Amino acid sequence: MAAEEAGDPFTLAGETFTSRLVLGTGGLPSMESLERVVRASGTQLVTVALRRVEAVAGNSMMQVLDRCGVRLLPNTAGCRTAREAVRTAELAREAFETDWVKLEVIGDEQTLLPDAVELLDAAEQLVLKGFQVFAYTTDDPVLGRRLADAGCAAVMPLGSPIGSGLGIRNPHSIALLRDAVSVPVVLDAGIGTASDAALAMELGCDAVLLASAVTRARDPERMALAMRQAVEGGRLARGAGRIPRRFHAQESTAMAGRPEL
Amino acid sequence: MAAEEAGDPFTLAGETFTSRLVLGTGGLPSMESLERVVRASGTQLVTVALRRVEAVAGNSMMQVLDRCGVRLLPNTAGCRTAREAVRTAELAREAFETDWVKLEVIGDEQTLLPDAVELLDAAEQLVLKGFQVFAYTTDDPVLGRRLADAGCAAVMPLGSPIGSGLGIRNPHSIALLRDAVSVPVVLDAGIGTASDAALAMELGCDAVLLASAVTRARDPERMALAMRQAVEGGRLARGAGRIPRRFHAQESTAMAGRPEL
Amino acid sequence: MAAEEAGDPFTLAGETFTSRLVLGTGGLPSMESLERVVRASGTQLVTVALRRVEAVAGNSMMQVLDRCGVRLLPNTAGCRTAREAVRTAELAREAFETDWVKLEVIGDEQTLLPDAVELLDAAEQLVLKGFQVFAYTTDDPVLGRRLADAGCAAVMPLGSPIGSGLGIRNPHSIALLRDAVSVPVVLDAGIGTASDAALAMELGCDAVLLASAVTRARDPERMALAMRQAVEGGRLARGAGRIPRRFHAQESTAMAGRPEL
Amino acid sequence: MAAEEAGDPFTLAGETFTSRLVLGTGGLPSMESLERVVRASGTQLVTVALRRVEAVAGNSMMQVLDRCGVRLLPNTAGCRTAREAVRTAELAREAFETDWVKLEVIGDEQTLLPDAVELLDAAEQLVLKGFQVFAYTTDDPVLGRRLADAGCAAVMPLGSPIGSGLGIRNPHSIALLRDAVSVPVVLDAGIGTASDAALAMELGCDAVLLASAVTRARDPERMALAMRQAVEGGRLARGAGRIPRRFHAQESTAMAGRPEL
Repeated sequence: MAAEEAGDPFTLAGETFTSRLVLGTGGLPSMESLERVVRASGTQLVTVALRRVEAVAGNSMMQVLDRCGVRLLPNTAGCRTAREAVRTAELAREAFETDWVKLEVIGDEQTLLPDAVELLDAAEQLVLKGFQVFAYTTDDPVLGRRLADAGCAAVMPLGSPIGSGLGIRNPHSIALLRDAVSVPVVLDAGIGTASDAALAMELGCDAVLLASAVTRARDPERMALAMRQAVEGGRLARGAGRIPRRFHAQESTAMAGRPEL
Repeated sequence: MAAEEAGDPFTLAGETFTSRLVLGTGGLPSMESLERVVRASGTQLVTVALRRVEAVAGNSMMQVLDRCGVRLLPNTAGCRTAREAVRTAELAREAFETDWVKLEVIGDEQTLLPDAVELLDAAEQLVLKGFQVFAYTTDDPVLGRRLADAGCAAVMPLGSPIGSGLGIRNPHSIALLRDAVSVPVVLDAGIGTASDAALAMELGCDAVLLASAVTRARDPERMALAMRQAVEGGRLARGAGRIPRRFHAQESTAMAGRPEL
Repeated sequence: MAAEEAGDPFTLAGETFTSRLVLGTGGLPSMESLERVVRASGTQLVTVALRRVEAVAGNSMMQVLDRCGVRLLPNTAGCRTAREAVRTAELAREAFETDWVKLEVIGDEQTLLPDAVELLDAAEQLVLKGFQVFAYTTDDPVLGRRLADAGCAAVMPLGSPIGSGLGIRNPHSIALLRDAVSVPVVLDAGIGTASDAALAMELGCDAVLLASAVTRARDPERMALAMRQAVEGGRLARGAGRIPRRFHAQESTAMAGRPEL
Repeated sequence: MAAEEAGDPFTLAGETFTSRLVLGTGGLPSMESLERVVRASGTQLVTVALRRVEAVAGNSMMQVLDRCGVRLLPNTAGCRTAREAVRTAELAREAFETDWVKLEVIGDEQTLLPDAVELLDAAEQLVLKGFQVFAYTTDDPVLGRRLADAGCAAVMPLGSPIGSGLGIRNPHSIALLRDAVSVPVVLDAGIGTASDAALAMELGCDAVLLASAVTRARDPERMALAMRQAVEGGRLARGAGRIPRRFHAQESTAMAGRPEL
């Protein structure tokens, strides 16, 4: 069942999407691979890093993404201060002709975790400059709410460090963050496999961003399909109203009237 | 993406299935609901309890399942001894005209957990009597291997107690059991939501049996769809080769050549 | 605070113990190390394997354990069938002049998990032969109850495979097993560190058996001390009545009457 | 074994402590109860809220704490902005005649989680004013390092929300934070039971702060004892070098030379 059939679109910064899977593109071996992965994932929104695009001769990556009809979400990957991130966002706005930006301000090379203070500072500046800010953040509900209050278009909490594949280490925090903000929440970073993506949706996230989990899988195209299914399945399950957890068992079939043997 | 497109059929007792979702039917309010849920799930194999069928006037449940084209898997739900289970299986074979049986021998009313000794005894008897035995069992890898050695067509370990919705409490045991047997492994009992079903497949199970998680969800049809997606997504993810788990982060995009700002 | 001060003795097969830590002795480099570890742990009950004792020249291990005043619990480590385990238990009874036996019947070389059917068979035979049977078992509550019903002096469920250090993989099962039997429950196998041992006690186990976690630690004596503290701490916490888990926060200090600033 | 015997003192803001348990005092029914709990815990450092002390007639709480010989750590509980927290800290410095302060700046009434930005601002101000700042913070390693860089005497990450009893929800983050700073790390908030406290120490924390887990337990004095044991046990286990985790089993006793039966 495709997302369209689910009749469950959502809105980011005024744009409507039917796919709830956002894709990062780093790590794929070729443009052919990129195209196959983008199509398999069903994504309509792809993050790109300024420098990656420049490094590709003839902007072949742009041609692929354009052919696939996806929207671009430039990011500020690698930036370590608010000043650097704002500068990068402005260059990206010019280069990609979009005011959408995935804001990353990294506080540590080893964990690539966001720096809360620089992040919020950058977010406030970029909102004032007219950007639609998608803020990559920790799973801290209070910081998430401050980013939302600052005017971010979406908050994008991590499940675990970028590329770690550790999944959602603290589902309780994601659930609290989900309750704390009314803007869209996109789970970003840490996803390793399909069940992680499904869990993100079950916790109430509006979408999931995937990069390494797909692009570095042994078979990226197959993993893109897997993630698409998992995101749709998790979203449906959230809406379907799961059964409560019980300490003991409950029979699925009433035993009354069982024949004597 | 439908299972058929995945091109990933599997075999149970000599029969080929494209859907890896097995459905239990207890708990649904009406025959209309049953039909919608069966169709939404895409299942090709449905468990039925002997007494439930008798209780339904005119066997309307049988008519629905027949119309949906699913195969029946009678179960011995509620049986507490090998003797009782064997007798129930024989009655079911006559009533449903199939030698397939999902063998349940319950050791405890509160947890509905299987009784290892009675279960193995019943399995051995039923195999001798020509049944295709699908054994509902604990997550014990040694017991699983003994059931397989006894000639069971499939072993069906629980994730957690029936109807508890606690998911897979011990993924390590399921992974060990998966390695311990060469017959199909069907995760049976305990699933609460889509990510649980995806995880079962990622751990290497061949299929997932669902009952309460679907039939008692607030919206059973939607949950059936969710589970179908999750099972397919988990299966694909298993085949796609997930990224390893890392303690630290790994950049999704190489940082070499980043422009000076 | 020593266990004696805790005033919390318990009874195994009619004998009273103040220490709730049972120690396995394999893996230590020397008799000096053994003595230090036994004393640091405060244990009063030590498991020994028949063959290990024979392998030690002049039974120096026996002399150490005798000097430490601990009771011996011979085990049937390495046995794979009921017949073999019963035979080993009988030899151990003669060699150690005790009718206590820790019954191990292993079903798999790779996981060293118990074989449920052979285990129950051996337990029944040994009880009839007058043994006090301490049964090493899976975390299956139904099997635990059957062992207790067969007359075992204690059931000893695993947390995870022997020597794996994976801790208690399924606390829910241990809690169910604890509720299912009235004989003492001793957590056996899988413990890796102090918090695992504390958790075992919090789940309601009466004692914890430790072997590799202590003997193969970098500093076995220090780990013996750590485990002693953890077992006592976990036991006290169980009795102290922990606070309930809450989704949200609760202030530790009432905020009423806070001064205006 | 008492902490003193462990010979494992540690230093906070230039002061040496042998107990690694810090106690919050809110929630106890009487001064008698307070004294018993303080003595049972072995604590040498107790947090106090400015308003609580004022509310107690004749400062009886101060008399009890003085009699127990513990050092006071005033906190800024209930403060929501840097300005408010700095003001409260200054009042507390006067009232308690100490420049130690546990800095709490709360960003949300429902979760009582810290506000990263206000917290860092307040910490920087207080360090400049000559305070020894013990900063209650999230489990974010980057924020922890910034607090340490700002001159805090210790960083105090939460395991989960205050009073929730949910334990350490993200051990991975605590381990990363431990690696990220060289100042003492004190696990603060969320502990529910003894095994949680042991885990905190195993993750490398230097100490644990406990309030509700002790004061709201059914038997606070017994829980204080439990926590003391668990903290010491966890600390010892950290130093003892635990065994690695293995997917399969490892025999605790070498099987070579096992007698034929």
